[in-house]
Amino acid sequence: MTLYESYEDMPKINNLSQDDIFISDSTIRDGSQMPGIVMTREFKIKCYEYLHKIGIEKVEAFVFNKREIDAVKTMLDIGYECPVVTGWARAVPADIDKVLAVDGLHETGILMSVSDSHIFAKMRLSGRQQAEEKYLNALQYAVDHGLKTRAHLEDMTRADNPGFTYPLVKKILEIDPNCIIRICDTVGYGLPFEQFGEPYSVPSMVQSLKKIGAKNIETHIHDDYGLGAANSLSGYLAGANWTSVTFLGIGERAGNTGMEKILLFLADRVEGFKKYNLSCLTEFAHYMEKSIGIKLPSNKPVVGRNVFAHESGIHASGVLKNPFIYEAYPPELVGGERFVLLGDSSGLDSVKHKVEETMRELLNIDIKINKTDPRLKKIQDEIQSLYDNELRTSCISDEELVYYVEKYFLNRPIREGEEEVTF
Amino acid sequence: MTLYESYEDMPKINNLSQDDIFISDSTIRDGSQMPGIVMTREFKIKCYEYLHKIGIEKVEAFVFNKREIDAVKTMLDIGYECPVVTGWARAVPADIDKVLAVDGLHETGILMSVSDSHIFAKMRLSGRQQAEEKYLNALQYAVDHGLKTRAHLEDMTRADNPGFTYPLVKKILEIDPNCIIRICDTVGYGLPFEQFGEPYSVPSMVQSLKKIGAKNIETHIHDDYGLGAANSLSGYLAGANWTSVTFLGIGERAGNTGMEKILLFLADRVEGFKKYNLSCLTEFAHYMEKSIGIKLPSNKPVVGRNVFAHESGIHASGVLKNPFIYEAYPPELVGGERFVLLGDSSGLDSVKHKVEETMRELLNIDIKINKTDPRLKKIQDEIQSLYDNELRTSCISDEELVYYVEKYFLNRPIREGEEEVTF
Repeated sequence: MTLYESYEDMPKINNLSQDDIFISDSTIRDGSQMPGIVMTREFKIKCYEYLHKIGIEKVEAFVFNKREIDAVKTMLDIGYECPVVTGWARAVPADIDKVLAVDGLHETGILMSVSDSHIFAKMRLSGRQQAEEKYLNALQYAVDHGLKTRAHLEDMTRADNPGFTYPLVKKILEIDPNCIIRICDTVGYGLPFEQFGEPYSVPSMVQSLKKIGAKNIETHIHDDYGLGAANSLSGYLAGANWTSVTFLGIGERAGNTGMEKILLFLADRVEGFKKYNLSCLTEFAHYMEKSIGIKLPSNKPVVGRNVFAHESGIHASGVLKNPFIYEAYPPELVGGERFVLLGDSSGLDSVKHKVEETMRELLNIDIKINKTDPRLKKIQDEIQSLYDNELRTSCISDEELVYYVEKYFLNRPIREGEEEVTF
Repeated sequence: MTLYESYEDMPKINNLSQDDIFISDSTIRDGSQMPGIVMTREFKIKCYEYLHKIGIEKVEAFVFNKREIDAVKTMLDIGYECPVVTGWARAVPADIDKVLAVDGLHETGILMSVSDSHIFAKMRLSGRQQAEEKYLNALQYAVDHGLKTRAHLEDMTRADNPGFTYPLVKKILEIDPNCIIRICDTVGYGLPFEQFGEPYSVPSMVQSLKKIGAKNIETHIHDDYGLGAANSLSGYLAGANWTSVTFLGIGERAGNTGMEKILLFLADRVEGFKKYNLSCLTEFAHYMEKSIGIKLPSNKPVVGRNVFAHESGIHASGVLKNPFIYEAYPPELVGGERFVLLGDSSGLDSVKHKVEETMRELLNIDIKINKTDPRLKKIQDEIQSLYDNELRTSCISDEELVYYVEKYFLNRPIREGEEEVTF
């Protein structure tokens, strides 16, 4: 009889080793391409600091304009052993020269689009042969100038890999046997299931690359079908030693594999995997939410506010006795907080506390509200009437508190004389 | 030589058939348990309408209080052939009586917690034997009263399945050979990879259940590790005929598998899978966002605003020529919209248009702003200075527009005399 009654009782996964598994960050490169994301130099440096705290091995950056170069130079000046800063180039010597121009960059990725729609329709090349020559020439140029390399096989999950990509990779490995072969799942078409083979199965592709002699294999996955984390993990399980991710999964369209999910899986589920420090993940997430204006849903895995949220009363007290029943992992692991929300038994003091807390977060200033402020009573009455009329059975969420705070404390008519807006 | 140059060129998955695959919705049951979610009767009925439009086969509901019962009765009165409304009960006759009391409900789920921490610490039962008796008695009671059944094997991904769950399932199938056996991945511990076996591998568990004779197998997955969609799909691929999901993945903690991801995979990637209509997904998502106050990140797979967002200029015109290069699937499939955002070449007319659009969405009222309003010019100047000083290279997102609209049109000092707040 097997008994599982605590976190320690749960068996760990034992076919992955932390010595063979690495993470490459693309938050400030691919993540920066997300529409609406504006990354200041300060933001990029702060990311670099967080990545260092976590123990991420590599950070990828553009060096095309002065602002990008300045950020990279500042990181190189700080000079942490991890993450190593690495460059990014299209398959042209001029781009590689930009990487070479930054002292301290010793590696570059090189964009090698392998799908026919990218070769023909996007780049308007006349044939695969022309693409191959372009890619190998750029690689040779980088190697001749002393750079380590990564081959970014763009759109590989919609490419004729047996017909084009694998022969190309063989030639790449002849030029640089240590080249990191990056499987780019550019529109998220990859699948984590072995059975589907080419061009969809990420584990199959990893195995094929290993067979032709690739020593370093990296996955780079987009999340269009919601399979990003599973695809990255399936790569590791098939023998890839790297995955390229962004924090919170920011990126073009539906974004990329979220780093936080990969970190949680490795740290929480894999035997002896101790090298990453996840305790700043929640803080990092809040920093990103505030700095670049992304929405962090309360049920976001790993870093969402609901992940350790419990309703008041018996349920909350139960969790405090034995969190294993209701929580997949302890909040300390990711710097999260167990959370008890406003319920139907709360008085004016609780409403005051939660309204102050909400306004502090919304406005980023410390606010004290007098308990006799009539708006507090209005909010309390409105909440109570929900319960009284059985309009709800759950506790009051942060989103709802924001609604009440906006309604009673922040929103005013657009112009004098217009009606107050409720929504 | 294989050429992939259009959506039609991409091979489909051909080992799943739409005749053997069904979806059970738990948005208004498990989704309603998400902290902060308040579901009115009207909201539930609207969900039922959307589920009907999509073609979802089943909807699960509580019938514990008057409001819940009223919602279910209204659905039954509308009486669509799909989704079929089904009940939910703990393993006690009193709960099953509540399902029986609603004319028109012909099936119930029965909660059967199978992990030891749930049996001992949560339910405070003295042993597994006691749990088994309780579950089988409840099942017998339901069957004796003419109900179809589902066995909800709670926390099965942290349970001693060979020692307890599978022997229990054998007895369940003796009582009701058609019982739907639900694999409940209660804290999201399940993995979509076959190699891990018990108690983690969802495909392994499906195969084990098939071996002991289960004809109907359903997965019910939580997304704590971000593997929800992959786990649900791995269940189908291993032979499960159902998955239980919530729209947008709402639910406790990190929520459940998002229905929209499963629908997209089936409709877009599986050969001959035509039975679901996805064209209302984006509208349904916006309805849920507005109605129950959840955050919809712009990079949310399937329904996020960025999924078909493109920057102005050459890139946008490229997409209009050949969307296949940049988009995983066409927006029409999910009722989405290809989107061109405000860029650095836009004049005051564009700013006016985008500000009006943003305020319409924020306040849900039609707003016209005079082009000479000085606030528009201020916003334009602020945006232009970002580009002029190379503080950005991307277009202006909706989130940023909200920021500008709030800063210049909506936010006022908290009290007379306080400083204006910027954040």
